[in-house]
Amino acid sequence: MARRLRLGMIGGGQGAFIGAVHRIAARMDDRYELIAGALSSDPQRGRASAAELHIAEDRVYASVEDMITREAGRAHPVDVVAIVTPNHLHYAATKALLRAGIHVICDKPLCHSLEEALDLEHEVAKRQALFALTHNYTGYPMIRHARAMVAAGELGDIRVVQVEYAQDWLATALEASGQKQASWRTDPARSGAGGCIGDIGTHAFNLAEFVSREKVQSVAAELTTFVEGRRLDDNTQMMLRFEGGARGALWSSQVTVGQDNALRLRIYGSKGSLEWAQESPNELRFTRLGEPPQTLRRAGPHLGPEAAHATRLPPGHPEGYFEAFAQLYRDFAEQINAVQEARTPDAASLLVPGIEAGVRGMRFITASVASSQNNAAWTALE
Amino acid sequence: MARRLRLGMIGGGQGAFIGAVHRIAARMDDRYELIAGALSSDPQRGRASAAELHIAEDRVYASVEDMITREAGRAHPVDVVAIVTPNHLHYAATKALLRAGIHVICDKPLCHSLEEALDLEHEVAKRQALFALTHNYTGYPMIRHARAMVAAGELGDIRVVQVEYAQDWLATALEASGQKQASWRTDPARSGAGGCIGDIGTHAFNLAEFVSREKVQSVAAELTTFVEGRRLDDNTQMMLRFEGGARGALWSSQVTVGQDNALRLRIYGSKGSLEWAQESPNELRFTRLGEPPQTLRRAGPHLGPEAAHATRLPPGHPEGYFEAFAQLYRDFAEQINAVQEARTPDAASLLVPGIEAGVRGMRFITASVASSQNNAAWTALE
Amino acid sequence: MARRLRLGMIGGGQGAFIGAVHRIAARMDDRYELIAGALSSDPQRGRASAAELHIAEDRVYASVEDMITREAGRAHPVDVVAIVTPNHLHYAATKALLRAGIHVICDKPLCHSLEEALDLEHEVAKRQALFALTHNYTGYPMIRHARAMVAAGELGDIRVVQVEYAQDWLATALEASGQKQASWRTDPARSGAGGCIGDIGTHAFNLAEFVSREKVQSVAAELTTFVEGRRLDDNTQMMLRFEGGARGALWSSQVTVGQDNALRLRIYGSKGSLEWAQESPNELRFTRLGEPPQTLRRAGPHLGPEAAHATRLPPGHPEGYFEAFAQLYRDFAEQINAVQEARTPDAASLLVPGIEAGVRGMRFITASVASSQNNAAWTALE
Amino acid sequence: MARRLRLGMIGGGQGAFIGAVHRIAARMDDRYELIAGALSSDPQRGRASAAELHIAEDRVYASVEDMITREAGRAHPVDVVAIVTPNHLHYAATKALLRAGIHVICDKPLCHSLEEALDLEHEVAKRQALFALTHNYTGYPMIRHARAMVAAGELGDIRVVQVEYAQDWLATALEASGQKQASWRTDPARSGAGGCIGDIGTHAFNLAEFVSREKVQSVAAELTTFVEGRRLDDNTQMMLRFEGGARGALWSSQVTVGQDNALRLRIYGSKGSLEWAQESPNELRFTRLGEPPQTLRRAGPHLGPEAAHATRLPPGHPEGYFEAFAQLYRDFAEQINAVQEARTPDAASLLVPGIEAGVRGMRFITASVASSQNNAAWTALE
Repeated sequence: MARRLRLGMIGGGQGAFIGAVHRIAARMDDRYELIAGALSSDPQRGRASAAELHIAEDRVYASVEDMITREAGRAHPVDVVAIVTPNHLHYAATKALLRAGIHVICDKPLCHSLEEALDLEHEVAKRQALFALTHNYTGYPMIRHARAMVAAGELGDIRVVQVEYAQDWLATALEASGQKQASWRTDPARSGAGGCIGDIGTHAFNLAEFVSREKVQSVAAELTTFVEGRRLDDNTQMMLRFEGGARGALWSSQVTVGQDNALRLRIYGSKGSLEWAQESPNELRFTRLGEPPQTLRRAGPHLGPEAAHATRLPPGHPEGYFEAFAQLYRDFAEQINAVQEARTPDAASLLVPGIEAGVRGMRFITASVASSQNNAAWTALE
Repeated sequence: MARRLRLGMIGGGQGAFIGAVHRIAARMDDRYELIAGALSSDPQRGRASAAELHIAEDRVYASVEDMITREAGRAHPVDVVAIVTPNHLHYAATKALLRAGIHVICDKPLCHSLEEALDLEHEVAKRQALFALTHNYTGYPMIRHARAMVAAGELGDIRVVQVEYAQDWLATALEASGQKQASWRTDPARSGAGGCIGDIGTHAFNLAEFVSREKVQSVAAELTTFVEGRRLDDNTQMMLRFEGGARGALWSSQVTVGQDNALRLRIYGSKGSLEWAQESPNELRFTRLGEPPQTLRRAGPHLGPEAAHATRLPPGHPEGYFEAFAQLYRDFAEQINAVQEARTPDAASLLVPGIEAGVRGMRFITASVASSQNNAAWTALE
Repeated sequence: MARRLRLGMIGGGQGAFIGAVHRIAARMDDRYELIAGALSSDPQRGRASAAELHIAEDRVYASVEDMITREAGRAHPVDVVAIVTPNHLHYAATKALLRAGIHVICDKPLCHSLEEALDLEHEVAKRQALFALTHNYTGYPMIRHARAMVAAGELGDIRVVQVEYAQDWLATALEASGQKQASWRTDPARSGAGGCIGDIGTHAFNLAEFVSREKVQSVAAELTTFVEGRRLDDNTQMMLRFEGGARGALWSSQVTVGQDNALRLRIYGSKGSLEWAQESPNELRFTRLGEPPQTLRRAGPHLGPEAAHATRLPPGHPEGYFEAFAQLYRDFAEQINAVQEARTPDAASLLVPGIEAGVRGMRFITASVASSQNNAAWTALE
Repeated sequence: MARRLRLGMIGGGQGAFIGAVHRIAARMDDRYELIAGALSSDPQRGRASAAELHIAEDRVYASVEDMITREAGRAHPVDVVAIVTPNHLHYAATKALLRAGIHVICDKPLCHSLEEALDLEHEVAKRQALFALTHNYTGYPMIRHARAMVAAGELGDIRVVQVEYAQDWLATALEASGQKQASWRTDPARSGAGGCIGDIGTHAFNLAEFVSREKVQSVAAELTTFVEGRRLDDNTQMMLRFEGGARGALWSSQVTVGQDNALRLRIYGSKGSLEWAQESPNELRFTRLGEPPQTLRRAGPHLGPEAAHATRLPPGHPEGYFEAFAQLYRDFAEQINAVQEARTPDAASLLVPGIEAGVRGMRFITASVASSQNNAAWTALE
């Protein structure tokens, strides 16, 4: 076995949400050990957070630059760093780490603008360091299987792609209460030009392209803010035209009372269809033209190697959000190990979303915001 | 008890689908007896069809005009006539019957153009005869209850309305096989300017307005034809702006493999939400802000009089499509009886969609087709 | 077409439940006309009930004997009579009607004792008149299909049969309030020795044997009464041994808060399994050994003629309780027409439960009560 | 923060299933580090397995005794050992570890006989070392919440408890193929007197008692073997009498085609009911008498501290089998830390099943086997 990778973390101190998720994901398959952190812009909180995580005191850093500089002087420096800050800090941290030759795992969305995204794409192309973007829903085994079924032609020509992502945690002005997650997600300075669309719409967009293997050509979008005083969109709907001729719709909302984290994808082709819901991730409904619907189940009969690769438990033992997230960490570890060992990585590990997915996401946000400002006129992703 | 109403039928001969549905609906609550018919344009088929239905030979007619003329001479003429032909025949038959003072039950959509629709609206306003349009999904008790909950303010301000209607029976070129239902529904001469949008999109539109009590102000629509050689749309998507500020989406498709008759409505307000699916019509999911979702069940505790009025069986004894359809027949019988008895009808009976719903439907089709022809530009329903 | 059958009804006056169900079932396919009734033991209520049903005054009778005598003198007497009274009146009415040569449709359970049941079986064997018992759940198309699949060997050897029927309407002492349905169902004088077991346990038992085509050999049963003061069982559980070696369990309850009418059947064989729930009757879950579960849907692809025979609507247009009930009426009409026309009936019509099902039901109740009184000792159905 | 606990493992080498589950569970919350192992009776496999797990070579042991002896000589010996072998090895290993003062986490069922179980209970009572039994389904937050609701009286008097656990992986003679999991589970020498009943029936039994807080007083059981040549039961059904008067049924099966890991619990009381299914573990259906059913969701509104204690993610982000399993590890770590720190443990950590649950499980198996051998006569758990 390869040694565990040495992991650093930027952001994710006490009170954060996604940092803890990254840590559990990193731990699950025992491919990483967290040994360094710049966990908070508040030094005291940073130290306290690190102590809870068994990070040695001399590897608690004030900033990403501090981490890069001082880790470089160590015999066993970090191999890879996870960036789990609010969005506005992704760009600079990613760029600095890549330039230092450190592999990067970055939370989504990639950054604030298409320009930044293209700049990062350029950096990745130039450097040795690898880059992963945690569009974590791509780690679900049934999503991997769905993508493989599309590739195998089981659906025929793709005609219709319906994707939606509905939540309700911002149905009221939660940000006014000072709640940390709500505050930065509704603040243009920290979130970027998109609110709901950046936070969850990008996940929906990414998943639709990942599974359907079709590229969105243009969008006709309407971004709406329902909660009074909010500065970013909390509901976004759009129609989609795909390059291959398919049509679709994307809807994301954070004000839909009664919806927790309802990401759903439905793809209809000339020969078959697939339907999947993130809240019941172990099942995939598949219907062949003229046949009864089948419920494909994780680890079940007749799934292929793509699903098996991302499966840890037998059927009926539910896997969930953490396991899908961990799949990206596991696959990325394989990519890094392959680089370190100067070998070709296991092909199955290459499905981790990378810089290209990040750029696509920024194109998506940019086009959607532009379309919405232009009375929902069709706007190309270019 | 009032006597049974004497019912005539236009269309609905052997091989038709919706005619048989109307007859079972009319029979269920014993408020009608079918005694006259112009069931087919083919005289032999018309007679054979009538014989199967126990219609006396001398009340088998060649046409609607024939029926009107000869029934007028009878001691006990038809009270009401159901029009169950393809769409292109609705207008003339409705107009002639109304002018003859005969009440009309017409299948949807109302007619071929907004001009025709407005003309019929004018006729209804001028005449004594009543008019019902069988947007049958409004007859489901949980839909009646949903509408009542919105009226009672249980949802607060309506923010988002998502409605969809997905089928798969036209996923292939069924019309090329000569199948009767497919042939006329894909023929502009008989269906009008809309295919899928007229056949099922109008149901979705009607249901959304019926339950939400919000009017669609404008649509940005894209009508698509996926099956080669087809002359009308088989998939239609659009975004909706409502007069009261709500936003929404409407999607209807007849090419979505694996979907039978999946009409679904979801309404999200500032205080609560409702979700309903036609294929599980006895349930309504209701969530109050900050509370767990509830599954309201037909005939269940705490439903109000609107649902009770449309309920025939205790909870857990599924009612379905026929019962919802029959509800319109039962309610319309009460309206007719009230006219005959010169009294005010039971208020609960007035929910049957009438000419206004027919006009709204034609405005919807007209605006959608226009928007689609104009690259999905926002188009008002006016 | 054959003429409509002339139908009489015993019981089912105002305030009754199952009488109205029988009437809608009889009406749905237009094979019957209700023309005579002894609807209530209270003459005034009987007349008022008949008037609402458009029954002529001179065909309102005081009793079954009265009906038999006076109908016999008519040119066009009743062909068939439906018995929809409380259980204790089934036996005498059935016997009298059969002896008068009148076909009988009787609600379940058949009667009060195995002796009565065997006596009626003897009567049916001796007479020309036909007998139907409305175990209505056998009329669902997916149940017909399930039975056909078992017959075709799709499940292999039957191993396990789990059937349950859970309601909650007797979770409190409803009978103490004078509610009519609750009063007679909890009264040994009118219901017989079984409460819950007779009212709904027999349905579960009948359905299990109907679909599995296996006979229960013996039961180990425990009948319990949870609501204080109640005189009959309101919860009954038992283990089943089938003649062919299968094992199973049957549970019925009327005190399970939150359950409406949850009749569910699951059958597991060596090659496949079937699962069905009455509250979602349009679906049947089928799994072949080693394959993903399929959702077979009413009117869907690859169903056989047995289901088609019992289907009125295309897929996705829910059929429910009334339609299943009506199927028994339609099939029984075919049986009667065949007798009247001295021909062989359509084979598909012969699935209506008859006297044998009634006798099996009484054996079941008798054995279960005996087992329960004997500390749940295994007791044969003999 | 307390230091990570030093964990040893007995069993769980390459090819095992449950060992890997324990390891992920131990890792998830970062409270343990695996540093010693006697992973296989085959020394070579033991060493290879340890290497994959980053266990140092000098802490790879040949047996539990070897581990105890040599760890005792270390400065930093194991704090706690997980036993994940086939059942027949649990007893001796547990006893030896407890006597050495090492805390034990043991997979279920506890051992082979009631005598062994009582002996272990005696050992636990005498020693300082703590004992945990991984009835992992008790770790689900919605199960913790269900138990709390029962305690709070939300269900009133418990009347009916229905529990079932259905799988299909032994529907054929898998053991004949040499499959490792199947082989030992169907071998009386390694599994004990119960097959299906020991493997999954005990989980069902444990969960029913855990949530309902009612003790099973006696069982009337029938154990059946359907697959030819199999030496232990593969299907088991029984009726239950609870000490408090409730009735119930328990069914477990490993031959039910189409069922993956379908553990389901339903509890009905005089005031309310609860229903839960392991394959959708994030939801709990709750119905109050006379009110509509509610879907309580993990992390959702109005759940109490018991659920919050076992929750890592916001609503709609599915947690699953690993997270529930990890909850036992996390809670047991708190118990051990409290002992080490000579303080009272957090009360919420005390729900981990311990030796008492192990003894109850052995009483359950013993009584069930005895009842089945006695023609399903009622047999007390004593």
